Amino acid sequence: MELTKARVLILGMDGYLGWALYCYLRNKVNIVNGLDNFSRRRHVHEIGSESLFPLPAETGQECRPIYTHDLVYNPAKVHKFIEEFNPTTIIHFAEQPSAPFSMRNSSSAAITQRNNVVGSLNLLWMLREHPHIHLVKLGTMGEYSDWIYKNNVEIPEANRIEVQYQDTDITIPTPRWAGSFYHWSKVFDSFNLEFACRLWGLSATDLNQGVVYGTRILGMADNELTRFDYDNYFGTVVNRFIVQSLTDIPLTVYGSGNQTRGYININDTMRAISLAIQNPPPKSTCRIVNQLTEVFSVNEIALMVQQLTGCAIESIDNPRLENEEHTYNPTFNKLEEWGLSDPHKMEQMLPSMLEDVKPFSSRILRDVIAPETKWTGRYYAH
Amino acid sequence: MELTKARVLILGMDGYLGWALYCYLRNKVNIVNGLDNFSRRRHVHEIGSESLFPLPAETGQECRPIYTHDLVYNPAKVHKFIEEFNPTTIIHFAEQPSAPFSMRNSSSAAITQRNNVVGSLNLLWMLREHPHIHLVKLGTMGEYSDWIYKNNVEIPEANRIEVQYQDTDITIPTPRWAGSFYHWSKVFDSFNLEFACRLWGLSATDLNQGVVYGTRILGMADNELTRFDYDNYFGTVVNRFIVQSLTDIPLTVYGSGNQTRGYININDTMRAISLAIQNPPPKSTCRIVNQLTEVFSVNEIALMVQQLTGCAIESIDNPRLENEEHTYNPTFNKLEEWGLSDPHKMEQMLPSMLEDVKPFSSRILRDVIAPETKWTGRYYAH
Repeated sequence: MELTKARVLILGMDGYLGWALYCYLRNKVNIVNGLDNFSRRRHVHEIGSESLFPLPAETGQECRPIYTHDLVYNPAKVHKFIEEFNPTTIIHFAEQPSAPFSMRNSSSAAITQRNNVVGSLNLLWMLREHPHIHLVKLGTMGEYSDWIYKNNVEIPEANRIEVQYQDTDITIPTPRWAGSFYHWSKVFDSFNLEFACRLWGLSATDLNQGVVYGTRILGMADNELTRFDYDNYFGTVVNRFIVQSLTDIPLTVYGSGNQTRGYININDTMRAISLAIQNPPPKSTCRIVNQLTEVFSVNEIALMVQQLTGCAIESIDNPRLENEEHTYNPTFNKLEEWGLSDPHKMEQMLPSMLEDVKPFSSRILRDVIAPETKWTGRYYAH
Repeated sequence: MELTKARVLILGMDGYLGWALYCYLRNKVNIVNGLDNFSRRRHVHEIGSESLFPLPAETGQECRPIYTHDLVYNPAKVHKFIEEFNPTTIIHFAEQPSAPFSMRNSSSAAITQRNNVVGSLNLLWMLREHPHIHLVKLGTMGEYSDWIYKNNVEIPEANRIEVQYQDTDITIPTPRWAGSFYHWSKVFDSFNLEFACRLWGLSATDLNQGVVYGTRILGMADNELTRFDYDNYFGTVVNRFIVQSLTDIPLTVYGSGNQTRGYININDTMRAISLAIQNPPPKSTCRIVNQLTEVFSVNEIALMVQQLTGCAIESIDNPRLENEEHTYNPTFNKLEEWGLSDPHKMEQMLPSMLEDVKPFSSRILRDVIAPETKWTGRYYAH
């Protein structure tokens, strides 16, 4: 569909990607609206941190144009909003996105799976009544995890793969295996989503995103920066390293640092999502797109930041239970097929990120950077 | 472990299997305690039905010795109970078990996944503190579903299978694919459970159970029968057919009736669970056991009931989205290895079931038998 005709509803518009997407789309589409339950702010406060870039208040004159709604606790209110707004496209960012937060304790794990699984399930039931709406849902490359790591086979960009089992050719759902209760919640979401598409004729795009990094997107004014987390729970690795490089704490590399993942700049995430809006899949289709543009190991990223800033690097005990030595061979052709050309290169983006972050150096909380949650608890005996 | 030394906690002790297990174990093990939130009674009332066999009140002099607890809304209270009781084994039946209920509407779907996924996740976090407790969890053969149906390959009794993918031998998690939001909740549970075992050194038995049938177990007095549901939401097929045969409504076969599943008599379920208690797996192990003893198509069961009672059979539109023509080739060796010999035969059990049900004929509600929930809703277009 033409972007100028899109009526876009962003769920989770107060988040890192949600607010950036609003700024990116507001002058390109017909209309954008956004909902949020503001739980991300609460969770970040709860673990003792806050966004490096100051955020406007939730309510009041200077606040963002976001309606307060909750997919888990009041789905009927969200449904009413959808019926009145009549969007062409819903972008679903309303999930708890932190793996360490989900492994922190029983309550955080339950919050994560309840919010992500039950909230998304409630949304699917709303779309059952409005199957013409294209749902763009954020998945994660972390859903593929272990099953593929030990073998140099390609991670597909599809819901099904063909394998031989007991000398028979069979088609199976693309194996998923997660490494945290957060990642499991995303696996569960993906299964519910594909099932609902098949069941009710919905059309959805499941963007399995790599790790996003970046401070701002084109079209964002200096006084409307999106949230930027660098703590050990909500700070993804590149954003965290850039902030760490401004302190005297060495970059904290977990374990060997050979963990290799897909990455994408926040500007390219915005472009990818707007390409998804313009290219809705047919009815009854849950389309998988692997949304990444580059592949790096943690060590490679640490070295890039070190070259830029001269900071120190330190390997610390890996708090996670994960393979540190593995192959990583994801397919990611669909973004290019849609026309996403010349993606940003991490190496070229790091200097401008550093410039954006520097003015806020005095807000850095040193105590929130070191990992606090160990995956295995005290009973780990592997 | 010796059965006489087992200290058993049954979660969901007010249910069909929970109460039967209490009656079965009470004189065989050291001590049995049970918890329930009594939600099954409420859900059955909500859809306009009730247990064919009358149940004692939840509270009062004649009630069952069950403590009221809830895994989702007050996990801390359950955890305290576990710490005080110090069980050797926890039997986890505290899940919403109906597929049609989970497909009924948004609220029932959310109740199902919240209760089953978040409730079980809360339990896993408790066991993290008590990894010596053996968790016996009820799964379902329905977790395997579609991936295997179209191919005459064996459904394994294992968490992993070896396949060839892109000319490479790889090990993948046993594919699971469900046909309802209930069955998905069980898939999600299984993944969380295996992850927690690996993470925290827990030992668990995941009993992927076929459809259970039967009215009573040895050791159960006439005045303490377990609940018995025959409605279109909570009545499993054999129990429902037996009740239907006492009405003038023909047995309702969904679609072609060639859907083939594993079955097990309630007495053999009890024996299987007590064998699981006696044979705990090692630490850090999530053991999969396929718990069935016979395989039948729906038509075969309908014919057995017809031969016994002379009732009519009618094929009705299948309310579910499922393959009606498929192979079904499950492996189920572990029960026999543990010593479960001479399992009950359905054909031989049906007459005594009919005798148990007859005295309650006047309680049969004719209106609750025909299916009310269509999987695809009004937008189904396959």
